[in-house]
Amino acid sequence: MSADVVPIGRVETPFETTSEAPPQGEETAYCGNVRVDEQFRDGIGEFAHGDSVVVVWWADRADRDVLRVRDGERGVFSTRSPARPNPICFTECEVVAVDTDDGTLAVRGVDMADGSPVLDLKPPLD
Amino acid sequence: MSADVVPIGRVETPFETTSEAPPQGEETAYCGNVRVDEQFRDGIGEFAHGDSVVVVWWADRADRDVLRVRDGERGVFSTRSPARPNPICFTECEVVAVDTDDGTLAVRGVDMADGSPVLDLKPPLD
Repeated sequence: MSADVVPIGRVETPFETTSEAPPQGEETAYCGNVRVDEQFRDGIGEFAHGDSVVVVWWADRADRDVLRVRDGERGVFSTRSPARPNPICFTECEVVAVDTDDGTLAVRGVDMADGSPVLDLKPPLD
Repeated sequence: MSADVVPIGRVETPFETTSEAPPQGEETAYCGNVRVDEQFRDGIGEFAHGDSVVVVWWADRADRDVLRVRDGERGVFSTRSPARPNPICFTECEVVAVDTDDGTLAVRGVDMADGSPVLDLKPPLD
């Protein structure tokens, strides 16, 4: 089995490149915008200011052949390095504002490189 | 952009079908086994008994055309329903045992249907 992931949109962030972006897994104070494509906007109706949302995104510039990191000392699956066989990353953000017509979710706490494809949005686990 | 996700393995669980599996996002007491394919086993070396691990899996039986759920009352992105445009699910489990040669991670807390493809493993956010 292999399956196609299709972006539901993109995220705008202040980080032009992957190396400028903060390491995955650290909370950040930075704001950004999730721009949801028109055909998926019916799915975002119930978000509101102050909600937590997990942004699931695709590290489209990541090296997918990496299995060992930190000079070979650690297996990639016990790290949050974006370089991994399936570069699916998730970042818990806070919803600052929602415009459902425009498909925009303004969020605080971004750590993605600008323009990264967004695959999914979910409420966090309790 | 669309991208191919490639399973790193499969998960064995007690739930033969999606409808038998517990709802996503509820902690469960059930054990299962993540069977990592040979070419990805170098990535699992550092897991140990008692670690927490986020199992990222693909709900391969899910309807990908769903945007509204609960009789249309909620947008799918504010729920954890596996039926969604990219059926990427994640479940936080506890590592019970690891066999790196065999590529097996025995875990507690599974909620996947048996045989679901596993896309990634990560440590949880703090």
